[in-house]
Amino acid sequence: MEEELPVVLVHRRPSATFVIPLKARLQAHFRVLDPCDSADDSHTFLARHGRSVRALLCASLAPLPADTLELLPSLELVVISTAGIDHVDLRFCRRRGITVTNASAALAEDAADHAVALLIDVLRRITAADRFVRAGSWPVKGEYPLGSKLRGKRVGIVGLGTIGSGIVKRLAALGCIISYTSRSKKPTVPFAYIGNVVELASNSDALIVCCPLTQGTHHIISEEVMRALGKGGVVVNVGRGALIDEERMVELLVRGELGGAGLDVFENEPDVPKELLELDHVILTPHSAVTTPESFRAVEDLIVDNFIAFFSNKPLLSVVQL
Amino acid sequence: MEEELPVVLVHRRPSATFVIPLKARLQAHFRVLDPCDSADDSHTFLARHGRSVRALLCASLAPLPADTLELLPSLELVVISTAGIDHVDLRFCRRRGITVTNASAALAEDAADHAVALLIDVLRRITAADRFVRAGSWPVKGEYPLGSKLRGKRVGIVGLGTIGSGIVKRLAALGCIISYTSRSKKPTVPFAYIGNVVELASNSDALIVCCPLTQGTHHIISEEVMRALGKGGVVVNVGRGALIDEERMVELLVRGELGGAGLDVFENEPDVPKELLELDHVILTPHSAVTTPESFRAVEDLIVDNFIAFFSNKPLLSVVQL
Repeated sequence: MEEELPVVLVHRRPSATFVIPLKARLQAHFRVLDPCDSADDSHTFLARHGRSVRALLCASLAPLPADTLELLPSLELVVISTAGIDHVDLRFCRRRGITVTNASAALAEDAADHAVALLIDVLRRITAADRFVRAGSWPVKGEYPLGSKLRGKRVGIVGLGTIGSGIVKRLAALGCIISYTSRSKKPTVPFAYIGNVVELASNSDALIVCCPLTQGTHHIISEEVMRALGKGGVVVNVGRGALIDEERMVELLVRGELGGAGLDVFENEPDVPKELLELDHVILTPHSAVTTPESFRAVEDLIVDNFIAFFSNKPLLSVVQL
Repeated sequence: MEEELPVVLVHRRPSATFVIPLKARLQAHFRVLDPCDSADDSHTFLARHGRSVRALLCASLAPLPADTLELLPSLELVVISTAGIDHVDLRFCRRRGITVTNASAALAEDAADHAVALLIDVLRRITAADRFVRAGSWPVKGEYPLGSKLRGKRVGIVGLGTIGSGIVKRLAALGCIISYTSRSKKPTVPFAYIGNVVELASNSDALIVCCPLTQGTHHIISEEVMRALGKGGVVVNVGRGALIDEERMVELLVRGELGGAGLDVFENEPDVPKELLELDHVILTPHSAVTTPESFRAVEDLIVDNFIAFFSNKPLLSVVQL
């Protein structure tokens, strides 16, 4: 009987723990080919099993480059388990007509919550204040330096997709004034669209970066953008590290030419520029914007439902526009 | 000419820096009697000037007990510069028919922002994650332990006044399920009213404490309430330290019988129980929920406008119901 089930190939790093509960759920519907069950190395495994595979799960952030995809000539669907999609060669997929789905829909709320928390934290200096209290400075030094109010702050959203839309809903409740940039103006959105990122920055007190990382968005937050934001300005990044020119950002933060930063992602994770570790006006979290058990279950639902839809010729749930 | 101006007496600690810019603004309208301008001690100053004073500014958190108020037999108005009012003998004021105003209206947004930030921070472990990154643990230990999602969390609000109302507006945008307790059910509020605090706690994943501290609310968050909240439960306090039985809370947190806490206020400020300084699942801020320059300006506006209204027999702006 097992031979009759449709085949789902798993692409993952051996260390990824994420896939384990999901695997059992997939096995209820599919024959799951997992290189980690095999003694073969990944290349040999794919060369042996890949020719007939139509559907692939790209689990966690394991890179999926063209030379891996070349081993899968029958591939029609790549289901990505994350919101970010920059670890998959999307140009190859587009050229070969491979459909790609991602997990933004299931992760957007966590990412939006995290982005808003980082913004409040930087403006109100919450993590820095916690350090102040834990260091025993309150009885010694007295009042903690003033933070800055949320209401009335002009916040520019870089990327108004699923995550960005969740962020603006939250910021509206905080009384922030919102504008955004995106690939195109969204006709139904009641906020100001500013196509040019430098212009967006010069009209903002804070930027929240939540667009996909592509060739077009690499270092979209350039030195020029950060200088336009100015020395009181704050950058929050819940997208990908390489959306920001990190080296320039660190220089500007160290020199006090940028006001602060809330960073969940970095260019060379898990390495964080050591200068940042000493700064009081930055918050650093370890790419944890979307790590809640509730969201992991929602991601699993989305992945399973996408494969079921694919093999029963029904519409997929979270197709990425390539 | 100066003799003609109405008199405002300032009651403050000599160390309070808060009153300085405000004093200049008050002096544009009033003759300001400030004990800090005098060589007399506070008691002598009041005994000399207090008999005819009708209006008093209680600046910062300087206590205003009955024996000080006794020195002011003509007093009709106490303008409190803070949201909290527990440092003033309100029973004396009620008995003597003295009107009291406070500054909740100007500080509510900051307090609400801070409360929500503390809740997200505890649930998503943001400050703890920042410590993890700064300690260099990310490359060594890998993924950071999972936090908890905001959407769907049941949050109980203890005190639905100006600050509590601001909090629920923000929590609604985060997808939390809200119920509240208050002196009475608010007919226009669309959330569940639960009169009994233990019952509220047993129906909540988190409690946010933002009611005034009075004799009736002292230790309103008792051990029984915290046990009803349970070992996964979170307490956030932006009200006053003594609203929580701090000693019991510390014990429960240390034993893992309470899930976490976000605390801006403490029973013996600026002293914080030393056990809390070591805990990873608490956030500690130094009574800084309402310290932004924007709010300080709004408080000054409210204070000046209240005195102007009083001396021109117009309605006061922020009267406390005694």
